[in-house]
Amino acid sequence: MSVRELRSFLSGEWRSGAGPEQILRDATSGGPVACFRSGGHDIGAALAWGRTRGGPALRRLTFRARGELVASLATALRDVRPELLEIARTYGATAADARRDVDGGLFTLAYYGRLGAKALPEAGFLLDGAVEPLSRKGGFAGRHILVPRHGIAVQINAYNFPCWGPLEKLGPALLAGVPSLVKPATRAALLTCHLVEAIVESGILPNGSISLLVGSGADLLDHLESQDAVLFTGSAETGRAIRSHPRVVAEAVRVNVEADSLNASVLGPDAAPGTPVRAAFLREIRSEMSAKAGQKCTAIRRALVPESEVDSIAAEVRGVVEELRVGAPSDPETDVGPLVDPDAVRAARDGLTELLAEADVIAGDPDAPLPAGAFFPPLALRLRDGGAAARVNSVEVFGPLVTLMPYRSADEAAAICAAGGGSLVTSVFSNDAAFLAEVTTAIAPWNGRVMTVSGRALAEHSGHGVAVPQLLHGGPGRAGGGEELGGLRALHPFLNRCAVQGDPETLRELFPDGAA
Amino acid sequence: MSVRELRSFLSGEWRSGAGPEQILRDATSGGPVACFRSGGHDIGAALAWGRTRGGPALRRLTFRARGELVASLATALRDVRPELLEIARTYGATAADARRDVDGGLFTLAYYGRLGAKALPEAGFLLDGAVEPLSRKGGFAGRHILVPRHGIAVQINAYNFPCWGPLEKLGPALLAGVPSLVKPATRAALLTCHLVEAIVESGILPNGSISLLVGSGADLLDHLESQDAVLFTGSAETGRAIRSHPRVVAEAVRVNVEADSLNASVLGPDAAPGTPVRAAFLREIRSEMSAKAGQKCTAIRRALVPESEVDSIAAEVRGVVEELRVGAPSDPETDVGPLVDPDAVRAARDGLTELLAEADVIAGDPDAPLPAGAFFPPLALRLRDGGAAARVNSVEVFGPLVTLMPYRSADEAAAICAAGGGSLVTSVFSNDAAFLAEVTTAIAPWNGRVMTVSGRALAEHSGHGVAVPQLLHGGPGRAGGGEELGGLRALHPFLNRCAVQGDPETLRELFPDGAA
Repeated sequence: MSVRELRSFLSGEWRSGAGPEQILRDATSGGPVACFRSGGHDIGAALAWGRTRGGPALRRLTFRARGELVASLATALRDVRPELLEIARTYGATAADARRDVDGGLFTLAYYGRLGAKALPEAGFLLDGAVEPLSRKGGFAGRHILVPRHGIAVQINAYNFPCWGPLEKLGPALLAGVPSLVKPATRAALLTCHLVEAIVESGILPNGSISLLVGSGADLLDHLESQDAVLFTGSAETGRAIRSHPRVVAEAVRVNVEADSLNASVLGPDAAPGTPVRAAFLREIRSEMSAKAGQKCTAIRRALVPESEVDSIAAEVRGVVEELRVGAPSDPETDVGPLVDPDAVRAARDGLTELLAEADVIAGDPDAPLPAGAFFPPLALRLRDGGAAARVNSVEVFGPLVTLMPYRSADEAAAICAAGGGSLVTSVFSNDAAFLAEVTTAIAPWNGRVMTVSGRALAEHSGHGVAVPQLLHGGPGRAGGGEELGGLRALHPFLNRCAVQGDPETLRELFPDGAA
Repeated sequence: MSVRELRSFLSGEWRSGAGPEQILRDATSGGPVACFRSGGHDIGAALAWGRTRGGPALRRLTFRARGELVASLATALRDVRPELLEIARTYGATAADARRDVDGGLFTLAYYGRLGAKALPEAGFLLDGAVEPLSRKGGFAGRHILVPRHGIAVQINAYNFPCWGPLEKLGPALLAGVPSLVKPATRAALLTCHLVEAIVESGILPNGSISLLVGSGADLLDHLESQDAVLFTGSAETGRAIRSHPRVVAEAVRVNVEADSLNASVLGPDAAPGTPVRAAFLREIRSEMSAKAGQKCTAIRRALVPESEVDSIAAEVRGVVEELRVGAPSDPETDVGPLVDPDAVRAARDGLTELLAEADVIAGDPDAPLPAGAFFPPLALRLRDGGAAARVNSVEVFGPLVTLMPYRSADEAAAICAAGGGSLVTSVFSNDAAFLAEVTTAIAPWNGRVMTVSGRALAEHSGHGVAVPQLLHGGPGRAGGGEELGGLRALHPFLNRCAVQGDPETLRELFPDGAA
């Protein structure tokens, strides 16, 4: 693959930055795949271009018409699917990883297109709830509407899903009538650039609907205004920096943070060795360690198992880990590809050192020889008997690593889940309805999603780590406190809820019920 | 009235602070009415007491049972209504002002009691939306639920509504199953203390459901945790400090800010002199200047009138302002009482000086002799012809002051409204359906509430400045970006939305539809 120059798309033009040339390298070979220059852009003007060109153009369409636009875009982007899958290898994605990102992104965009074209009205507003009478004689009332905000949605994406990440944010923003500026993580920017180029070249979106900033975010946040939104996916630390940025705070900019968290999976007390539910639990451990080499914000970091079963499960997990084949993403035999770059390996190694203060390696070898490239060995750890789990519950190794933790009761399992401080997802594998109910109820306040897997769900469940567009993706506390996806709920960061009062006739004129 | 010692209710005990004695003075006479001591409390323990005592006790009840609890509390509090009305005079409330605060608060609490007992289920969760099929064969699905968070709701209230403020937050928190700590503004703490004492003494709420912190907030925010919420009503500046507090950011604590904003009222081009709609507009100007002496976050600060009508309206507004009687809140002839204290007068004077750079006084006399006490004269200003309105659109004088601003078209009227940077409410007075529709549509993204008043609404409208519990109270940008009230929407800061996945039978067992 030739070295491609990445440019930003700002104020309607493709522009190179003004800084020194920087190189993006292949995660496996280390060879150069792209170059770019940061800085030198007039970000304030670029954001204003989105707000004043893209915003009005999108708002001239109805919600339904925007749904049709999104549907057309999703169809058009199918043409670049093969190119996107190919590019995905450069940041270490195996063929399966690439499909998760690329097909997941295209599916999510198509879902929002269908939803908008089917479920949204031929109107410029959404009705929210019923008419509320406000006077005894019935001459005065109120009702809530949702209308597009007049700002721009700034996406700050993570490197692990450079296709799905932008598209799962773009679809809802477009439906809502709000333009976007996409800021990809530099390490995987090549794929996002190719994607945005295809979007721009399709000519489907009104001018101003999408912008792209490659390289450093520089002073991006300094130019935000009160009707804008920032949607961030990434580390808890960067999420905090965005949330407390002076300009973001001063303007009460909407912020949605989706941060990686210490997700757990719980095996029920009924899942004896050899039962199908136990096998499904082990498959999920395997899948979450291998998919994107564990570089997923939803991955299982903590595996909670009945105390009496820890030894036997440890042996089974050892079998799982030892079977995982680490290698080049282009090799079809590879289960676990490289991490995105050497920095990611160093960060994972640092995290491992912290965890080893409380846990022991029970599968895999931290010092095993690995192929050249940004590789990290798949590892299973086990919390030391009777030990504290302060680090296991707070330090995330963003790679193929899971820690086994024993529990003695449903109560204790729930308490351990909650000790993660808020998670994107927890899964519970059991055929014991009472156990499923008790754990689900207890952990629901601490999770954005809880996946229960009984024997009846084995064949069809969508997977612990998979964020489906129909359901909320996000979680409280450590997970960032944000809400993405979840069907039409995803439109809320881009809409303003307004209560409109008036006499009933005026309200009917303003908001015909047929528009609902 | 004797000088009463105010104490905090923390960890289930009434406690004096450890600092030097401080005095609260009557806004009119300047005489002492209460004393208190700040500091010396173990706030961390007090918050934990709420979380670990009040939270579980409230969560053991169903949503509906909590509705019945709130309804009982609202009934019981009627007994202290006369005492609360009496206390209200000490912070400058006229009889009408006191009823707005006290009756408004009791009505809002009773509304939430009725709503909870009637509309909420006999269950520990709320269903949110339909079941979403997630597999082709129908063996796997998901649905969203809302469950009480395990934290405490910290209320930080403004001085202008020391009864309504705490109760409009307490009702929804109790319904949601979350305990509260109430931190009143010190200047009007006497009333809130009396209210909370009555709540505690009623014995209706489970132990731990309510705490009270009198005096300085001290290290209150430093002890917050990820499941807590902070609900703040007050200045934009303090709102920003709370939102960017390191602990709030680190724990992704939910924050709801309701800040005073530059609200506007727009008179339509059709409202000729002598028309009923014009008379209604003038009545509303009068009402919003006199109610609580203009110390309301929803008050009309900017009155937008057709350019051709500015002179004639100025004359009418002069008549309104000159009729307003300033005096002691105990005098039944008084329209406009004092501000809350001399600091508030100084702040209002400073704001006036800023506005005079762009506007002239057209009614009232800034230098007129006033009664002894914290008084500020009712004033109407007029934006200078062709002048900028940078200060008029951004500097809030929290007192009885309104500025007339001319507009030339519906577009321009909407743009001036938006130049306030986000408002709690804008009202529009007109019989011109097209004008109402154009302005309402254009300003909805910038407002939490828009009140339209046509001829048909004259007799029954609820008033520009009145936050009714059925409708959203809050607004984007400058108004803080928060959402309070709005019926059951008010419960959201206290609930966690969780998507639960499983086979359909498991989902039915976990969440019987009858519970919806």
